[in-house]
Amino acid sequence: MTGVKHMKWWGWGVEGTAFNPDDKPKLQPFVLERVGLDISATAKSPAPAFEDLDVPASRLPDELRDTLQGIVGPDFLFTDDMDRVVHTFGKSVRDLVRIRRGDFKRVPDVVVYPGTEAEVAEIVDAAVAADAVVIPFGGGSNIVGSLEPLATETRPVISLDLGRMSKVLEIDAEAGLARIQAGALGPSIEEQLGRRGWTMGHFPDSFTHSTLGGWVATRSSGMQSDKYGDIADITRGLRMVMPGQILELRPLPSYSSGPSVREMVIGSEGRLGVITEVWVHIHRVPEERVILAYFFPDMASGLRAMHDIAKSDAAPSVTRVSDSRETQFSMATQKKSKGLSKYVTKGLMEVLKRRGWNLEQMCMSFIGYEGSKAHVAYEKSLVKEIVAKHGGFLVGKGPGQLYDQKKFDTPYIRDFLLDRGAVADVSETAAPWSRLEELYESTIEAAEQAMERVGVRGYIMCHLSHSYHAGACLYFTFAIADDSPESLLKYDEVKRSVQQSFIDNGATISHHHGVGLEHAPWIEADISTAGTFITGKLFEGVDPGNNLNPGKIIHDGKPGITSNSSDA
Amino acid sequence: MTGVKHMKWWGWGVEGTAFNPDDKPKLQPFVLERVGLDISATAKSPAPAFEDLDVPASRLPDELRDTLQGIVGPDFLFTDDMDRVVHTFGKSVRDLVRIRRGDFKRVPDVVVYPGTEAEVAEIVDAAVAADAVVIPFGGGSNIVGSLEPLATETRPVISLDLGRMSKVLEIDAEAGLARIQAGALGPSIEEQLGRRGWTMGHFPDSFTHSTLGGWVATRSSGMQSDKYGDIADITRGLRMVMPGQILELRPLPSYSSGPSVREMVIGSEGRLGVITEVWVHIHRVPEERVILAYFFPDMASGLRAMHDIAKSDAAPSVTRVSDSRETQFSMATQKKSKGLSKYVTKGLMEVLKRRGWNLEQMCMSFIGYEGSKAHVAYEKSLVKEIVAKHGGFLVGKGPGQLYDQKKFDTPYIRDFLLDRGAVADVSETAAPWSRLEELYESTIEAAEQAMERVGVRGYIMCHLSHSYHAGACLYFTFAIADDSPESLLKYDEVKRSVQQSFIDNGATISHHHGVGLEHAPWIEADISTAGTFITGKLFEGVDPGNNLNPGKIIHDGKPGITSNSSDA
Repeated sequence: MTGVKHMKWWGWGVEGTAFNPDDKPKLQPFVLERVGLDISATAKSPAPAFEDLDVPASRLPDELRDTLQGIVGPDFLFTDDMDRVVHTFGKSVRDLVRIRRGDFKRVPDVVVYPGTEAEVAEIVDAAVAADAVVIPFGGGSNIVGSLEPLATETRPVISLDLGRMSKVLEIDAEAGLARIQAGALGPSIEEQLGRRGWTMGHFPDSFTHSTLGGWVATRSSGMQSDKYGDIADITRGLRMVMPGQILELRPLPSYSSGPSVREMVIGSEGRLGVITEVWVHIHRVPEERVILAYFFPDMASGLRAMHDIAKSDAAPSVTRVSDSRETQFSMATQKKSKGLSKYVTKGLMEVLKRRGWNLEQMCMSFIGYEGSKAHVAYEKSLVKEIVAKHGGFLVGKGPGQLYDQKKFDTPYIRDFLLDRGAVADVSETAAPWSRLEELYESTIEAAEQAMERVGVRGYIMCHLSHSYHAGACLYFTFAIADDSPESLLKYDEVKRSVQQSFIDNGATISHHHGVGLEHAPWIEADISTAGTFITGKLFEGVDPGNNLNPGKIIHDGKPGITSNSSDA
Repeated sequence: MTGVKHMKWWGWGVEGTAFNPDDKPKLQPFVLERVGLDISATAKSPAPAFEDLDVPASRLPDELRDTLQGIVGPDFLFTDDMDRVVHTFGKSVRDLVRIRRGDFKRVPDVVVYPGTEAEVAEIVDAAVAADAVVIPFGGGSNIVGSLEPLATETRPVISLDLGRMSKVLEIDAEAGLARIQAGALGPSIEEQLGRRGWTMGHFPDSFTHSTLGGWVATRSSGMQSDKYGDIADITRGLRMVMPGQILELRPLPSYSSGPSVREMVIGSEGRLGVITEVWVHIHRVPEERVILAYFFPDMASGLRAMHDIAKSDAAPSVTRVSDSRETQFSMATQKKSKGLSKYVTKGLMEVLKRRGWNLEQMCMSFIGYEGSKAHVAYEKSLVKEIVAKHGGFLVGKGPGQLYDQKKFDTPYIRDFLLDRGAVADVSETAAPWSRLEELYESTIEAAEQAMERVGVRGYIMCHLSHSYHAGACLYFTFAIADDSPESLLKYDEVKRSVQQSFIDNGATISHHHGVGLEHAPWIEADISTAGTFITGKLFEGVDPGNNLNPGKIIHDGKPGITSNSSDA
């Protein structure tokens, strides 16, 4: 027993926890109406039994096994099928579909669980010496294909699980900094910090099942990043094991010491080495923390309100507005007798209708406030004026509390839908405010056209999740109703259309999920040919043997391979 | 005539403008008492006549000259001594001393003034084809040796002056972004933006004589960066000419597209290419903008107050506190009948004395506020409490206005002192709050010990200039009274002690001036051996021929050469 817990091998989250439709009576008719899928039936295509899967055998050479076992000890090296399968993929819907199908092109040959940075260094050196591949593994929540070995990989593949390295090592209370091991999961970090009155304030959707090292390696962002910053802002120093040496970046508030090595490591997805420790910003838990819900008459007014908030003297911790599609989906997932319905009453809807709102266009928004009581009151008053200017309406605290409690549960629904014949995933991006409305409209249209082209019914919805001075993040969720063997090909067509729309509308290929293999085909369009060249030279220079998570972000110095999937 | 204006070949700023001691009667006795130097005399060692200097002849091969002239035209290529000398150095005191001595180890062979990015690209390609060296030149204000050719350089050296490329090309009013050519000087940027109601909000000390491209290439920071961000935050996209290709990073508020290429270019000091255009944040001029002066009883309480402000809900545009040495120096440079003395009256001093203050320890602080009138009032009230908690005292608006008007004049005093036998320069750094007081004390002590070692009298003073969540920038100014031929060697001893103290106290080698040659000896101690390795591989990969500003930051893949100076 390593003591390291993993998610279900076939889906999101922990065994025994699943999306429960029973107390959400509006969901079944909603899905039936929108995509023609009846989700009331029991699972049509549930995950198979693990024993029924045909898992390729480990090809670990004996010599390398002996070396690795000598480093971590026999209790922390595994070559059994289950452990190797758990470390083969992340949790994109492409991963979930492939794992259910037993579609394993290449499975790691061994999983090692080092307990110290010294062991990590020995593993990396041994891997390079044996011309093996090292893929660092945190919580396994990645959805862009950063974790899977290349299908064509002929060398031994080592999955290096950081799960045992999960401690808060040091708190610098004076500076508001903590040194934390890279394998620490979100809840463990907050628990260790919280005991001493601190918070890191980083809450990505994957929080429960993702690690600090993973956040740094993929340029993560969290729900309160408007206030606490993206992980690139939060990360002030780090240690990373590289072949034959260890990078040590001391914690610094700012610096002018050449190109930022810190910013080369952030987002490097294991291509430069294995992150072992990170110095992060920590904060005292604020006196008050509240998330208020607002309605806007439509998405355009919601987006403009978020923009005006970004331009104002207010600096909320959360700025979020869902489009009408996502708002309607949220309404449809409300519980019978509590939750949203307690706040979003028929009476309220009547009021809005009398105001001339088209309820079909209505958009729900969350704005978060943190600080002293007086500060929260001050910021609320600044936002109040802006909301009013854009025809918005304050709903109150209730939905925000609900959102806050339930925010990490969303991924469970994907497995539920997959069981019932729908393929769902997300694409998120960021663009300047000037491009945002067109980006939004074009992406919805591009996805719908793609669904029509491949002949499936589907749904796409969106919310703005982060605001910056110059722009914002738009976060799209889309699903297609298809459980045919071609479902992934159809999904790909939609996903490709969405990503291409990002590029065509001046947006980035990802705001906080990373590149991996999934977004690699667009990296050149995003950062230009010369940017790809620079990144390739960086990888090549640091890892001439191509032993460190090869093929991710950039493939052989070129923009990414189209996909590692058998379907693509 | 190129239309491009340069600073004096021998000193800071424009011809005809100089530091005027006549209306500052307290300065002469102050300097005499502190360092034993009588500055009332006329210049003892003024700058020589240009004709008296022995400038090495241009070694530009005819073929390369013809090629370059074919690109920029005969009006924009110069090989005369004056133009080449102007482009040999920046404006560090080491540069000023060497230029006065005619100590030219290597002068660029040609200066070209391209008018377009296409011309820049042709120049870079021609240089690489001819195995020549390209050194980009902005305003020439650099003080870390980023502009000078290596003394050992045997290949032709081209100084590429961006001065003709100085336009604001595009304003995206909706997104708060502007696309600006890299050669634009600070005042020109603010003038072009100001005409349309915008400001970039970036005001480094060198503002008048530095360019956007230079700011980006050296990771600049400005006086209001607490609010507007350092240049790394302000820069959202850019274009850079590289050998055979052009990097294009579109303006994005945030992204997760692999290692940050933007953050590789920022701080690269010409080692990766020539920056031609930058997308920057712009802001509407705020309704109110005020800088208030405060006194603190000593530096420790001043630092703690700045820290508490950083931790508070307030977010001022300027946080600055001078130590007692710098406060006394400021008092000594006040004009007879106006300026500080109007506000810092004997009456006020009596009040403070009665409060038990030791006026020798007193520290002056400036806090800047921007936003709506209500917001400024709100933030002032937050700061007021914190200042009171730390025993501080509000002086008022007057000194802040004075500081605001005079802030760009400080560098002129260096030439005045040099004329009179004192060598003065600055070193700035950043460190976590937990290290700051010790960093401050140790650095003062290290400098004073170094002065004692080399047997000179000198002065060192300091201010905190920027606050962050995790730490702050300390900005040291130091001078030694020496005009012997060994003055630079003595200066070096002090400078080295200061830089080593930064490293020993967990601080960076530079907060916003860069690395160049001056700080290169400490780059490895700052970013670790592996960090130096990564940076070296980046440079090597992009510029295998070592044609792009070679030797800066990293020399032949190793930590920097100790110095290019003949004295070191």
